[in-house]
Amino acid sequence: MSTILEQEIASQPEVIARLLERETTRVQQIVKELGSFDYALIAARGTSDHAATYAKYAWAALARCPVALATPSLYTLYSAPPRMHGALVVGVSQSGQSPDIVSVLEEAKRQGRRTLAITNDRSSPLAAAADHVIELHAGAEQSVAATKTYTAQLAAMALLAACMSEQQQLQGEVQLLPEIVSRTLTAAAELKQRAERYRYMDQCVVIGRGYNYATSFELALKLKELTYVMANAYSSADFRHGPIATVSEGLPVVLIMPRGMAFDDMHDLARELQARGAELLLATDEPKAQELATTLLPLPQSMPEWLSPFAAIIPGQIFALNLALAKGIDPDAPRGLQKVTRTR
Amino acid sequence: MSTILEQEIASQPEVIARLLERETTRVQQIVKELGSFDYALIAARGTSDHAATYAKYAWAALARCPVALATPSLYTLYSAPPRMHGALVVGVSQSGQSPDIVSVLEEAKRQGRRTLAITNDRSSPLAAAADHVIELHAGAEQSVAATKTYTAQLAAMALLAACMSEQQQLQGEVQLLPEIVSRTLTAAAELKQRAERYRYMDQCVVIGRGYNYATSFELALKLKELTYVMANAYSSADFRHGPIATVSEGLPVVLIMPRGMAFDDMHDLARELQARGAELLLATDEPKAQELATTLLPLPQSMPEWLSPFAAIIPGQIFALNLALAKGIDPDAPRGLQKVTRTR
Repeated sequence: MSTILEQEIASQPEVIARLLERETTRVQQIVKELGSFDYALIAARGTSDHAATYAKYAWAALARCPVALATPSLYTLYSAPPRMHGALVVGVSQSGQSPDIVSVLEEAKRQGRRTLAITNDRSSPLAAAADHVIELHAGAEQSVAATKTYTAQLAAMALLAACMSEQQQLQGEVQLLPEIVSRTLTAAAELKQRAERYRYMDQCVVIGRGYNYATSFELALKLKELTYVMANAYSSADFRHGPIATVSEGLPVVLIMPRGMAFDDMHDLARELQARGAELLLATDEPKAQELATTLLPLPQSMPEWLSPFAAIIPGQIFALNLALAKGIDPDAPRGLQKVTRTR
Repeated sequence: MSTILEQEIASQPEVIARLLERETTRVQQIVKELGSFDYALIAARGTSDHAATYAKYAWAALARCPVALATPSLYTLYSAPPRMHGALVVGVSQSGQSPDIVSVLEEAKRQGRRTLAITNDRSSPLAAAADHVIELHAGAEQSVAATKTYTAQLAAMALLAACMSEQQQLQGEVQLLPEIVSRTLTAAAELKQRAERYRYMDQCVVIGRGYNYATSFELALKLKELTYVMANAYSSADFRHGPIATVSEGLPVVLIMPRGMAFDDMHDLARELQARGAELLLATDEPKAQELATTLLPLPQSMPEWLSPFAAIIPGQIFALNLALAKGIDPDAPRGLQKVTRTR
């Protein structure tokens, strides 16, 4: 009766718990062995690229590690890879199959750099190309739309951030993740009916900032894959630099705004968008923001901001799933997509 | 009679010629003084961020220099700047006013790193914060939608790529830019009437890859700012990883596909999109692609691929301008935007 996607969404606390149980010690060891590097270069596509975007914030803010996102076409189409001196090179792919991501790690080896793969398949070409492998232990993901492997990739990134920071407190906080995600799933159940209202929505905007910049891109991708809605993701700052012109009366705007350092900026934007007549869907745990919401995507209280992306994507996943159903789309078989995309 | 935007678009060959005349020697000198660095960290927002994206490809492909895009909120909202060891730090801003971009350069100074500003205003806070300044010489840009300062920023990035590459041939090719842009402007005049067809378009997709990944983002932003069309930009590879599900019969898809290393991949995608019933608007100089186009955004023959983004954005600018007029929007005063956006 229930869809595979729904089951995979529901399995996330268990997946993250398994990953933490099996990989925490390994990640501590890997971080010790990596030695020093100037910056991390991460190669990823699609959902994995959003996990890399989370790392861009978490690794820098917590461990002062700068992150560059790789441009795989330089390694494949152009055969013009940049020099990698000073870089730790990381490849992220659920399947570990995408040739362009593997190419970046192979080039890193040629240049004598350390490499790390984050993948759900230990026997994949990506894992084979890397010095170190962090495995997601998410089980086979059957839905085309990635959910459990996304939060598992986030968990790998959070573990790495905590270990690189050398702060015991952060390593303790990571262990709270299964419970945070579990509580969020319970609270999000009420969204099932709520999606009906958006049956005829055909475009929307999704905005986050800082740690949740990644969440805005991941939610926009879920909406595109599962509901075919033309969803556009931005940071609140980039949105003000032009795209805000697209806001007209009634445009649905999803704002990812848990409490934390990015909240005030997001709250200012929410009020400005309300004044322009946008319809606000707010992912927040802050009562003064909830007042502005036509639709609330509820988040649990009292989680550390740096872990809020784990919670913030959950109501979005459930909203996208139920909107697909309301639109008569089979969420397990979106048109024109295969599970593994082999881009050059 | 004509709009300010139209005049600014038309002025681009002259602006680029002036920049090359006044800055070529300076850029050669700056590159000598920069010394060695592991990677470049570029901070920019909006249109300037698209020029930075061009640099990400051009600097790497031609001078093997890896580029990371900065996350300004780490420096402002989070007060958690990453370490910058090994980085050359570059700030790009037309006005030089945005506090978050200035913050990144100030932090670089605190960390003892070399800094470079690319700006249209030599007396701006951004220029004051930098060791080296490349000035755009574009004259005051009165339109909210950046056009001449975008191609001027691209020209600064191309000059830097050519000088860093130490290849005389590339430095010679840069000097062709005013003529390439001028020829493209002439050919694009035919688009004036063509925009009528899209009077009721309210969403579209824009795709580029490699050097023209930046062009897809810049054109999507012009469409959003000037015509309020919900335009979504992608690389062809990322598009295949999910967003391709949004393609339905008649969806307008703009493909930036000049001849070069990225052409075959883009051509494959164009044929696939045609099979799915999308309406194709193609920016190309290749006859076998032109056959697939419902609307051709003409590009001049025989330009080096690395300079094609200068040409490729021109028909896009003219299309966006004329679509704004067809929709009854004043292109000199898009709703809800100011020229200088001061994001934290």
